[in-house]
Parts: sequence; C-alpha cells; structure tokens
Amino acid sequence: MIAIDKLPTKHPKITEEIRSRICSGKIETKLPSLRKLSEEFQVHPITLQKALATLNAEGLIKNKPRKGYFVQQHKIQKVIILMHSYKNDKGYFGSILNILLKLIPSYHLQVQVFYLKPGQQKENFINPKDLPQDKNTAILTVGFQEQYYFESLLKAGFPVVALDTIPVNSNVHCVGVDNLTTGSEATNYLINKGNKKILFLGHSRGNMSEADALILEVGYKISMETAGLKPHSVFNNNSNDKQTAKNFNQIFKKFDKWDAVFASNPTAIKAFFNYCKDNNLPKPKQCIFLDFLKKNTKDATVRIDLEQLCKHALECTKKLQKNNHMQPQRILVNTQLNIPKHLL
Amino acid sequence: MIAIDKLPTKHPKITEEIRSRICSGKIETKLPSLRKLSEEFQVHPITLQKALATLNAEGLIKNKPRKGYFVQQHKIQKVIILMHSYKNDKGYFGSILNILLKLIPSYHLQVQVFYLKPGQQKENFINPKDLPQDKNTAILTVGFQEQYYFESLLKAGFPVVALDTIPVNSNVHCVGVDNLTTGSEATNYLINKGNKKILFLGHSRGNMSEADALILEVGYKISMETAGLKPHSVFNNNSNDKQTAKNFNQIFKKFDKWDAVFASNPTAIKAFFNYCKDNNLPKPKQCIFLDFLKKNTKDATVRIDLEQLCKHALECTKKLQKNNHMQPQRILVNTQLNIPKHLL
Repeated sequence: MIAIDKLPTKHPKITEEIRSRICSGKIETKLPSLRKLSEEFQVHPITLQKALATLNAEGLIKNKPRKGYFVQQHKIQKVIILMHSYKNDKGYFGSILNILLKLIPSYHLQVQVFYLKPGQQKENFINPKDLPQDKNTAILTVGFQEQYYFESLLKAGFPVVALDTIPVNSNVHCVGVDNLTTGSEATNYLINKGNKKILFLGHSRGNMSEADALILEVGYKISMETAGLKPHSVFNNNSNDKQTAKNFNQIFKKFDKWDAVFASNPTAIKAFFNYCKDNNLPKPKQCIFLDFLKKNTKDATVRIDLEQLCKHALECTKKLQKNNHMQPQRILVNTQLNIPKHLL
Repeated sequence: MIAIDKLPTKHPKITEEIRSRICSGKIETKLPSLRKLSEEFQVHPITLQKALATLNAEGLIKNKPRKGYFVQQHKIQKVIILMHSYKNDKGYFGSILNILLKLIPSYHLQVQVFYLKPGQQKENFINPKDLPQDKNTAILTVGFQEQYYFESLLKAGFPVVALDTIPVNSNVHCVGVDNLTTGSEATNYLINKGNKKILFLGHSRGNMSEADALILEVGYKISMETAGLKPHSVFNNNSNDKQTAKNFNQIFKKFDKWDAVFASNPTAIKAFFNYCKDNNLPKPKQCIFLDFLKKNTKDATVRIDLEQLCKHALECTKKLQKNNHMQPQRILVNTQLNIPKHLL
C-alpha cells in the first residue's frame, strides 16, 4: 500500500475520493472517462491522470490501452464492522468508527457497518447468521467484550478482529491498549509528585467490572507496591448512583483526605469530584485520568492514540484475509502521558 | 530466513552446527575447506555442499570462486540476554533460556548471557554501563519486571526486548502471555464443569503481587461475573509460610468447602493442598493451574507455549536491530487448555 500522505499535494483529495468510490462500490467496473472525471472535479486532465496513476500503482485499477481504466475487484476485500454502540455515538466508540471509516479506503477495504439499534440490548444484537455471508469477509468488532458473541461469530465462519478491549477468546485476533503499562505510568506520575495516599478509581458497567479498568488497577498496584505504598481502589457503578455513593463513602472511612486520584475515565472522576463537593469532603489535590480526546485540557491525562489503534486493527484485518488460518495475534498499543505545562 | 525444518533431512544437523559455529564466533572469517569439513563430519562432500548452499542462501556465508566460503559478519547481529535467575536454573526462566539458545543461530544472532550470581540480589544486578557497548546490540531480558532496571538499560542506549512478563515501561518492546484470556478460559472450564464456589489462587514474590497472577485474576473475575458468580481470591506469600497460612485460613472462613480452584502456578496449588491436608480441610474437587511443562499430567492445566514465546521475542529482536527507532511493540501469546482424557 502506498503511503497516501507522501503523494504530491495537488491531487490527493481526488485520489482519495475515487478510491473511496471504488471501495464503496459506487464505481464497480469501468471508470468514467478522463474528460468526464476532470470536468466533475474541475481539474486539468493531467492532474486527474496523476490521481489515476496512483490508484493504478496501488493495483486498485488497471489501464487497458484505448479502453480506459477498470476496477480490479479482486483487490478489494470486505470488512463488516460491528459497533457496540448506537449510530452517531459521539463518545469513544464513535470516535474510533470515524477514524476507521477515514482510513479504510486506503486499505482497499469495502465496509459495511452494523450498530446497536436504539433501545436494543446487546444480547439481541444481530445474529451472525444474518450477516452477509460473502467469502473473504472479515469481521471487525468495536468495543465488544461478550464471549458468547465472539463464539457465535467464529461458529458462523467469520475471521474476527476485535478492537479496543482485549476479548477473552483465544481464537479472536485483537488490538487493544496496554493498560498495564498505562496504569503503572500514570501512578508513577502521581508518586513522583510526592503523593502517598493515592486512590485508584475505576469505572464499571453496572455491577460488572470493566476489563480495562481492572487491568489499569493492576498497573496501579504494581507501581504502588514498588514504591512501598499501599494500594486502595474504589469503583463507581454507572447504573446505580446510590451504590456509587456507598462505595465512595467507604473509601473516605479509610482516610479523611486523599492526596491524589488516578481514574480510568473522565466520567468516573467527575462523579467522584461531585461526591466530594456534595458531601463537603476535601478534593484530592492531584489527579490523572485516561482520555482519548486530543483537545488541550488543564488536567493531567493519559491519552490513547486512537489512530494507532485503528491502523493496527486494519493491518490485522488485511493480513487475516490473506491468511485465514494464521494464529490469532494480540497487539497492544501504548498510551502517552499528557501533562499540561502548569503541572510540570 | 529459511525455515530450517523444511530442509531435506540429510544435512540439517550439519547446517545447524556450522551456523552455530559462525554465530558463536568459532568461525570468524574463512570457512575450513570442503574436504576438511566433510572429513570432520564424516559425510560425502556433496552433502556438505548442500549444507553450505543453505547458509549461502541465508546470506550468512558467501562463496568466492576458487577462494572458498567467507563469513558475512555484517549479517550477524548481537543480542545480550539478561536472565532474572541463576545459571542452570531448571525452572520456568531456565526453560525459556534453553529454547532461546537453541533457536538463536537460525536467527543469525550472536549471543552473550548474563545471570544473577548465586546470592546476588536483583538490585545488584550488572550495571548496564558495564555491559559490552558494541553497536547493533539489542538486549533481551527474561523475567525482569523492575522498572528502574529497564530505565537504566534504555539510558545506556540499548534497545530492549522484554520476554515473559509485560514490563511497565512503554519504551520497551515486549512479548508476553495473554494472561487475561488465559484466566478467563481456565475459569470457564471450571464453571462449565458445574462448579460454583471457585477460588482464584495467585502466587506472589514475597509481599509483592506478581503482575501475571494479577492479570490472570482479572480474567477470572470477568468469567465469574459473566456467569453470575461471585469471585473470591487468595494469594500465597512465597517467603512467609505463616502469612500464607493466615491467608488460606481466611478463605475457609468464607466457605467451609470450595468446589474448585484455579491457581496461577503449580507451587501455589501444592501449598494450598498441603494446607488443606494439614488442617483436615476438604480439598476442592477440581482444579486447574498454569504450567509450562509439556509432560503428561493427570491434572487439568493451562499450558504456555514457550517456543512460540521465544520465536516472537527473537523476531522482535531482529526487527528492532534493523530499525532502532521503531515504536515499541507489545505482543501477547495465547495459551492452551490441556485437559487429560479422564477429566473430559
């Protein structure tokens, strides 16, 4: 695959647009004539020719002398994305999907996305038997963690790549975040700032612990114990405010005042700070939490590089389609500490 | 690199031996004559020629007409293995080292191994400044988990690949075991057998929790919660039998009788069963534990494929030497459940 950002700047947008039309099936066999395309894009035919030459070099189209350019359908592989969230989700999973959709044409993949329907429970998500059963189709799941669902996908004969959460099924390829290192590095940041009573604050899905939060907690524990400090954890319960308040209450029985807190997501820390405010409890002086947004914040955060995550997942999807029987891969991506200047 | 096991069977041992002599520096420039070598190995010169042709195809030696075969030194890369155990260790780390040493010549690596000296504390392990400072040397650590040590290796300018335990340093490449999936699959085995009161039994290094045991525990928790069962954990303390007995005692206050136990290593389960016997407590009916040995056992085990682990680590070492500035990789290897027939 050609690195798109290395092409001359004049025609990449045109190349990208034509590539995307081909991969989405809008152009299926023969490309419109050079004249027609240059009129549509309002560029000189030579500029257009350069765009087509790029796609020709990629192998996506082929020039037949005097006949024009033809789509090489066999170069296009299919991927079905299963989203563990609703359409137009503006959160973590939605952000991942947007990046995937932007990257997908450059991987010569034809994509179809399935979402949870409003109000639909994940237990009632689309039956793998009802998914398009084309050959050479790989499944890319985003945010799924349900063992039984992975099993039914594999049973239906799909190769599966899982993105984001490491699923607990050894037959699924997956790309996730190295939460162990993340948890340890975030905790080290707070320890190096001189904090001693450091709390780990994890998020959960109702009564179920989230795997990523639990692994962050392991990294936190290792760093605390290495520094000779005692680890203390608390989890919120995102579907039961009373239970959350009870959990937070218990943690303030251990110490009246916490030096610092490391939280597994922004929602959990917000809930914790609100609880402190409502109950007239001292807010920890320092905090750090996991975030995926690139915006500048006044807080110390650990950032997940979603683009890196998506690139690894798509590369895995490509490899898998070429070699259906390859051993499941498990790749973890690092995070970066983002400490604003005023906190350094 | 050529897959050695795909070569004809007559001369692979000779190829291997010559390769190993070259990589270990026993043959440095020109190879002995064909006649001399065939005499030494007591084979027909044609057999020997085939072995040399293989090494020639690998690029390790080059045939100069009428002058003979010459070692291509620039094809040999250097790796320093740092062992977090003593020489002649017969355990987990020692087994990994033996596999590495066997595989290393086929990766065209020249190896030097450093061990902990008898009685030496890991805090006093060799100072990275005192390691051979050749260019193109990568470090491969086995079993290290100490953050400060990774930092000092990186500071001394070495690229580092860590094998086995995922280290909590984002600048280190690493290859480890997918303990999350392992923990979940082992627990599912016990759940599917109809057990309900299932105990997780983790091993520790003294008072410090072992990262791998903690992540296994996360996999255990996910499976238990998914099945609607309550997770319960206990850790042994391998340097304090009294503390271990106290921990085990506490767990029998929760239930008089446990249905099953999932242990993070064979030592921990042995200690637990001994405790049950000594205190006239009912032994759990079923158990499963993590093991690296390939021998047949009457117990259900989760097996770590050490060869897979070592291959990934050496591939990573090779890649790293070619591209010193590549982003740290984190690769996790799957385990296999090994259930003897009588338990199926």
